[in-house]
Amino acid sequence: MDLSVEPRVVTAGVDLFADALAAQAVHVTPVDWRPPLPGSDDALTVVMADPRRGAANDRALAAMLSASAELVDVRPAREALGIGPGQFLHAGPPIEWERASGPLRGALVGAMLLEDLAANADQAETALARGGVHLEPCHHRGAVGPMAGVISPSMWVFELRDAVSGGTAWCSLNEGLGRVLRYGAYSPDVIERLRWMSSVLGPALRAAVVRHGPLDVKAIIAQMVQMGDEGHNRNRAGTLMFLRELMPDLVEAADPAHLADVVRFVARNDHFFLNLVMPAGKLQTAAAAGIPGSSVVTTMARNGTDFGIQVSGLDDRWFTGPALVPDGLFLGSYGPQDANPDIGDSAIAETMGLGGLVMAAAPAIVRFVGGTVPDALRTTRLMYEITVGENPAFALPILDFRGAPTGIDVAAVVKTGVLPQINTGMAGRVAGTGQVGAGLVTPPAECFVQALDALALAAPPLPGAA
Amino acid sequence: MDLSVEPRVVTAGVDLFADALAAQAVHVTPVDWRPPLPGSDDALTVVMADPRRGAANDRALAAMLSASAELVDVRPAREALGIGPGQFLHAGPPIEWERASGPLRGALVGAMLLEDLAANADQAETALARGGVHLEPCHHRGAVGPMAGVISPSMWVFELRDAVSGGTAWCSLNEGLGRVLRYGAYSPDVIERLRWMSSVLGPALRAAVVRHGPLDVKAIIAQMVQMGDEGHNRNRAGTLMFLRELMPDLVEAADPAHLADVVRFVARNDHFFLNLVMPAGKLQTAAAAGIPGSSVVTTMARNGTDFGIQVSGLDDRWFTGPALVPDGLFLGSYGPQDANPDIGDSAIAETMGLGGLVMAAAPAIVRFVGGTVPDALRTTRLMYEITVGENPAFALPILDFRGAPTGIDVAAVVKTGVLPQINTGMAGRVAGTGQVGAGLVTPPAECFVQALDALALAAPPLPGAA
Repeated sequence: MDLSVEPRVVTAGVDLFADALAAQAVHVTPVDWRPPLPGSDDALTVVMADPRRGAANDRALAAMLSASAELVDVRPAREALGIGPGQFLHAGPPIEWERASGPLRGALVGAMLLEDLAANADQAETALARGGVHLEPCHHRGAVGPMAGVISPSMWVFELRDAVSGGTAWCSLNEGLGRVLRYGAYSPDVIERLRWMSSVLGPALRAAVVRHGPLDVKAIIAQMVQMGDEGHNRNRAGTLMFLRELMPDLVEAADPAHLADVVRFVARNDHFFLNLVMPAGKLQTAAAAGIPGSSVVTTMARNGTDFGIQVSGLDDRWFTGPALVPDGLFLGSYGPQDANPDIGDSAIAETMGLGGLVMAAAPAIVRFVGGTVPDALRTTRLMYEITVGENPAFALPILDFRGAPTGIDVAAVVKTGVLPQINTGMAGRVAGTGQVGAGLVTPPAECFVQALDALALAAPPLPGAA
Repeated sequence: MDLSVEPRVVTAGVDLFADALAAQAVHVTPVDWRPPLPGSDDALTVVMADPRRGAANDRALAAMLSASAELVDVRPAREALGIGPGQFLHAGPPIEWERASGPLRGALVGAMLLEDLAANADQAETALARGGVHLEPCHHRGAVGPMAGVISPSMWVFELRDAVSGGTAWCSLNEGLGRVLRYGAYSPDVIERLRWMSSVLGPALRAAVVRHGPLDVKAIIAQMVQMGDEGHNRNRAGTLMFLRELMPDLVEAADPAHLADVVRFVARNDHFFLNLVMPAGKLQTAAAAGIPGSSVVTTMARNGTDFGIQVSGLDDRWFTGPALVPDGLFLGSYGPQDANPDIGDSAIAETMGLGGLVMAAAPAIVRFVGGTVPDALRTTRLMYEITVGENPAFALPILDFRGAPTGIDVAAVVKTGVLPQINTGMAGRVAGTGQVGAGLVTPPAECFVQALDALALAAPPLPGAA
C-alpha cells in the first residue's frame, strides 16, 4: 500500500471497519458483498486461471464498443429473414408449443390469424398444438423481438447494419402498449393494427429511410441516455429523436394520404424506439461473439418459460433456467397473480449495457418499474462490479459522464453473486390478455453457474493438474 | 430538541462541529453560509417583520403554481402587441440607444433593415442614434424576448394564455444559434432568415396551432425537466415534444410546399422551445405580480447594460444594477474578452424556477455552460434557500422528485447573500458578431438590496417605531 497518497479503501461486509475508516475521513467505497454462487468454486478457479480470459474479454469489450448501428432498410420479414408460410420466430431460447407460456401462445395464435393460416383462435391453437408450424428463436436468424417476440412472414422489420463488422440485425416494428400481439393479445383490433403496420407503416418508413440514407441509431442511443432514457422500459427521448431525424424525409417520401396517420402512430408510442435499441444491441453483442476464452455474455433472452444466456467463448450454446416473475407496478386492476414469468429478447438492452444496468441515467423509470431513485443509482454502481468495462459512447451525466457498465462477465457474476438487473414489461399469464405491468427482474443464477462450468470445461487444464 | 427521534442537524460555517457529528453518524446537512448583503440590516429587519409578508408570499407562490400556459396562436407582432412602424421592443429594463450594448444595437440595426426603415447598417445606426424610433421593454407589453429580445412589427410571435388568471404573454420565434439577430448579428442571411420566418414559418405554425387547438406548454415543461432539460440553455427534449405534439396538425394544415422546410427548421434547432418556456414563465410570474407585502421576484431581465428585477409587492418598478459578464464556455476562437455583459429576458426561466435553479435536472448542461455535475446538484440544493416554495408540477427525478425551487424571495437573497444562479447564452460585445458562448452568471446584488429598501419603505412601521 502506497502511503504517500491518500488511501482509498474498498470494504466488503465488515461494517465496523468501514465505519472506523470513515470516522478518520478516509474515502470508503462500501461494496454489497455476497458469497459466490453455490457449487461453483472449482469451475471459478479454473476459469479465473484461464490465461486466455483477460485478452479475450478485452477483445470482446473492444468489439462491443466499436460496433456501429445504422438503420438501413425496413422490409417484410419474409424477405429479410427468409421465413415462409408456417414459419414463426419467437423470443428467447428454443421452445415447443407444449412448454410455451400464455403470452407466447397468444402471440402465435395471433400470428396464425394474421397470416390467414387459421379462421379463428380455436383453429389456430389446434394447428399449433399439432406441431404443424415451425418455431425458431429470433436470435438464430440475427433478429430480436420484444416480449413474445413473434415474427411472422408478413410483418415488417427494421434492418440495421454494423459498418465495422459488416453484421446485420433485424427487429419487428413496435405496436404500442396495452393489448398488443407481443404481450399475447390477438383480438381483431390487434390483427387489424398489424395489417395496417404491414400495408401502411412499413412502406412509409421504408420510403423515408431509403430517402434519408443510413440513420445512425447508435448516435441517438448516446443522446437518449443523457435525456432520462435507459433504452429498455424508457425510450421516450429516443423515439422523439428518431421521429425528428426521419420526419423531413417522411414528409417528402411517404404517401401523403397516410402521412398524418403514420406520424400519429409513431408519436403516440413512447416505446417505438425500443425496437431500434434492440437490434443495435444485437449488432453490438454479436460483434463480441465467438472469442475463445471470453466469459462475456452475448445474449440474455427469455421465452416466457426459460431464461437463456449465450457466452462469447461458448459459441451458440444456450444456458437456461426457469424465467422469474418480475416485481413491479401493475396496470389498472392487475396484480402479481396475473403476471407471466419474464419474457422477451429485450434483455439484449442489458446485455449491451443499457436498461437495468443504467437505471441511474433514468431516475424517472422508477415510476414505471418500481423502486426508488437511490435504488436506481445504487443498482448502476453495482453493475460495474460484474462488467468488464465501460462504454464512453453511452456516458451517464449523473455519474459525471462515466460510461455505461458493459460486457457482463459470467465469472464476475458467479464470484460476486450479483445478478444483472433487468427492467422489463410484464405480460398477462393468460393468452390473449396483453400487458399487465412493468417491473424489475434478474436472470436465474443457474444460467451463469452452468455457463461457468462450460467455460471451465473449455479452458486449458490448470498447470500441474492431472 | 426531541431526542426520541434521530437528530437531523443543519450546520453552517463551523466545520469542526459538522465533522464531529458526522463521525457520530448523525445526518448532517452543511449549508454554504454567508453573511447578509452589506448595508441591508435595517431594511431586512423591517421587511422580515412585515406582518403581511408570509401570507403575501404564500399567495404569490400559489398564483405561480396554479398558472397554466397554453399556446393558442402564432401571429405578427404588429397585431398581437400593437406595435407600428418605428416601434421596437427589447429585452430587459428600459434603455436608450446611447447606453445600449453592442448586441442590442446590432439587433436594432437588423430590425431597421428587416422593416425596410433603412437601406443599410450605417443609415440604420444614424436613424437610431437620432432617436427617431420608439424603444420599449418587451415586459411592458406582456412579452419576452431572448438575448437582445428585439421584436419589430413584422416578426411573428407565439401567443400563450393562462386559463387560470386569463393572462396572455408573447414571445418571438427562435431563429437558431450562431449568427442570429437576437445575438446582435444583422448580415443579409440573418435578415433573409427572418423574412422566411415571417412569410413561411409563422403562417405554418399558426395553421397547425389553430387546427390543434390550445397546446399545453406547461405539460411539456413538466416532462422536459424529467428529460435532462433545465428550460433555459437546454431545451432539447422540450423542442422534440413540441414538434411531436404539433406534427400531425402541421402535416394536415400547413402548405405542403413548405412542410419539409418548416420541419427541418424546427427539428435542427434544439433551442426552439426556449421561446415557449419564456412566455410560460411570463404568465406564471405575472400571475404573482402586484400582491402588497410580497417580496417574491416576478421579473429578472437584462438589456445588455443593466440587470433589472421587479418584485410582486412593488408593482412595475425596476430595480437595476450593472449586468455582469457570464463565466462559461466559448464557441470557436472566441474568449472572455469577446463577451458582452448578460443580456435577455430569458432569465424569466430562473424567475419561474427553471434554468440555473434546476441545473440538477440537467447534468449534461455543464458541457454547455461549464462547471461540474456535483456543482449542478449543489447549486439546485442551494436555490431552495432563497425561494419561498417548490413546484410539484416541475418535479426533479434526481432529487427524488422534489419540486423545482420556486419564487425567489428578495429578503432571503439579501439575508443569505446567495444570488440566483442563471444559465445563459453569451453574445459578442461588438454589434454584428452573434453568439460567442454560453455560461453561468448571477444578477448584481444591488438589485436585491434596492428592492429590499423599497419593500421596507412600503412596509407598515415596526411596532414601537417613531
